[in-house]
Amino acid sequence: MTEAQFYSVDYKQRLMAAEKIHEIFSKLIEQIKEGKNPTLVFPKRTLSNTIYDAKRKLLLLGSELQRRRFLDVNEAKKFMQTLLMAKIIYESLINNEYPTIRDLYYRGKHSIIYRDLSGRRREENTWDEQKESDAVIRDIEVLTGLLREDMLILSKEKGKLVGKIRLRSGGDIIDASKMGHGAYALEPTPDLIEILDVDADFVLVVEKDAVFQQLHRYRFWEKYRALLITSAGQPDRATRRFVRRLNEEFRLPVYILTDADPYGWYIYSVFKIGSITLSYESEKLATPKARFLGVSMSDIFGEYDDSGKLVRPPYLGVKERKNYIIKATPQDIKRAKELLNYKWFQTKKWKKEILTFLHKKVKLEIEALASKSIRFLADKYIVEKIQSGWID
Amino acid sequence: MTEAQFYSVDYKQRLMAAEKIHEIFSKLIEQIKEGKNPTLVFPKRTLSNTIYDAKRKLLLLGSELQRRRFLDVNEAKKFMQTLLMAKIIYESLINNEYPTIRDLYYRGKHSIIYRDLSGRRREENTWDEQKESDAVIRDIEVLTGLLREDMLILSKEKGKLVGKIRLRSGGDIIDASKMGHGAYALEPTPDLIEILDVDADFVLVVEKDAVFQQLHRYRFWEKYRALLITSAGQPDRATRRFVRRLNEEFRLPVYILTDADPYGWYIYSVFKIGSITLSYESEKLATPKARFLGVSMSDIFGEYDDSGKLVRPPYLGVKERKNYIIKATPQDIKRAKELLNYKWFQTKKWKKEILTFLHKKVKLEIEALASKSIRFLADKYIVEKIQSGWID
Repeated sequence: MTEAQFYSVDYKQRLMAAEKIHEIFSKLIEQIKEGKNPTLVFPKRTLSNTIYDAKRKLLLLGSELQRRRFLDVNEAKKFMQTLLMAKIIYESLINNEYPTIRDLYYRGKHSIIYRDLSGRRREENTWDEQKESDAVIRDIEVLTGLLREDMLILSKEKGKLVGKIRLRSGGDIIDASKMGHGAYALEPTPDLIEILDVDADFVLVVEKDAVFQQLHRYRFWEKYRALLITSAGQPDRATRRFVRRLNEEFRLPVYILTDADPYGWYIYSVFKIGSITLSYESEKLATPKARFLGVSMSDIFGEYDDSGKLVRPPYLGVKERKNYIIKATPQDIKRAKELLNYKWFQTKKWKKEILTFLHKKVKLEIEALASKSIRFLADKYIVEKIQSGWID
Repeated sequence: MTEAQFYSVDYKQRLMAAEKIHEIFSKLIEQIKEGKNPTLVFPKRTLSNTIYDAKRKLLLLGSELQRRRFLDVNEAKKFMQTLLMAKIIYESLINNEYPTIRDLYYRGKHSIIYRDLSGRRREENTWDEQKESDAVIRDIEVLTGLLREDMLILSKEKGKLVGKIRLRSGGDIIDASKMGHGAYALEPTPDLIEILDVDADFVLVVEKDAVFQQLHRYRFWEKYRALLITSAGQPDRATRRFVRRLNEEFRLPVYILTDADPYGWYIYSVFKIGSITLSYESEKLATPKARFLGVSMSDIFGEYDDSGKLVRPPYLGVKERKNYIIKATPQDIKRAKELLNYKWFQTKKWKKEILTFLHKKVKLEIEALASKSIRFLADKYIVEKIQSGWID
């Protein structure tokens, strides 16, 4: 296969990423030439160095630095792993490969045989578990400022899209309003998508694929000038990045529709703020302006003001509530208590939501609303909530 | 929303399905008029009435019939559930709804309040768990000969497609060779897809989405005139039906590529034969001619003839094998022993595969082959296996 057979967008990205890796790691050669201990310096990826920037509404890495030295008994193995992984990624880039993180784990996995000072034959594995090689990939992301996608590392991808938007990807022009009853399945490298034009007023992200299918079949996106996206459960990186791009580059409001339970709130939290343990990604993957559309506890029980007066009636009658609500599990309760401590859930509305949940100990699925009729879900519930019922 | 806004293909399907339900259930009215006990008669969905048709290579329902009577204390509730569900599905059809099975569960869930013979107030739920309403949906599928998809019941859908094939869906014409680095996400009603033309020699179904992404990026489908499909794990109904249609209507050979483990073999089995507990679907969803491409135990350890002579070398060297193979879990062993009893695994090659696995107690992921390089996986492994290494 010749280079020409690969798309030029990918090719440019390869060159850029390979040069960046070369630049970072060639510093080690200089250090060696100068007789110094080869040392990699990069921000610490620890919880204590993860800071919530309340103004930007983002989780970011703080200023603490980590030094990984070659001539250090405690760090020599990690140093070796980092260089091994950087080499593998670099070679993948220049050899037109598209590895996954699982591939990278396999590519680097082998035993190093050596003799110790007393001449005894020893064997040491480069790594045993994928969590070791994954950690090193994350270090390289932080070291280079390149996300794995920027290094053409692929992954499985669940995100789907329909609506009036035209994209250029891999030399093709895709019109996501011409997908029939199917949808456009996003690629795992969302920054290589060129968004040509958008004719929509907002983005609706639906947690559940089955509800996405129903809204799509109802032509929700056409009727309400929406881009309709599903994350099919917990969102993956590419879906998060693509949603962020729509918000940032096209100023489209983003609404997240999930079940009324702590798992749904967590999905919203991942879209909005990012993952706590991977805060360095947030700068590119999170959408701080994302809004929680529902289903909220006040949709189930009604919204009351401080004096206890009903200011917004519930979407479910008493009988419906009885039939549809589900008892919360101990796992739900535990997760809700955790969410209550998150800094971005410290608003009045969110506290009310979570405390109502902890008081009532019940949850509700989107399907309960859809079961009233797709018209109820699309034309009444979603429309009203976008007008005035979303939570920040 | 007017009817005209719905697509005519869906509309015709609605009419057809609604008429069928009307036809089946109006028989009950005749029975009542004749003073008979209202009775529904349909094939038993039990394991004992599930038969493997070795000639057609399909699991089918046998000839045992089930009678569900209204005036029977043991069956009155099931009878009521069946009629309730039929009514809900019928109403969904004529009201242009697209419910999911979860919706149908919610729609029917309520309490019936009545007084017993002694005048005491009693309460009985239509159903409590979704497994009860799901069982009734399956009964209605068997009763009417309509699959749920034929009744416009939607579900989540994971299947993706790329390759030279043009489809008409919902009024749009989709060219699956123009999806860029993304893919066409199949719809949950695969029989409403009109396949316009196919320019390919075979279908390659890849278990893992991440490997699908790699092969797509390598333009495997273009280079080898393939339709590339991923089931993203255990295949759903629509993906199975779509693969079957490609095999049946376009005579395309179907190759299944999974990990070398009992879970992968089971995925192959579901594509080929169907699910044992849902044999009535197989007639439409299974692809009896599907072939197992790999990864096979003989790919890992080489193929030997009865005299113990190596007739096909392994794809892994000794060192690679050491680095890549994974120890089987007790769960794997248990599943392999189950598979050994399946009638469609009684061929010489399959028995050898499973027995080798039970002897060696190791498994291998596709990624281990991909990690040697995408060229190795695509241009050597898959090509050679299609030429001469697949298992039926």
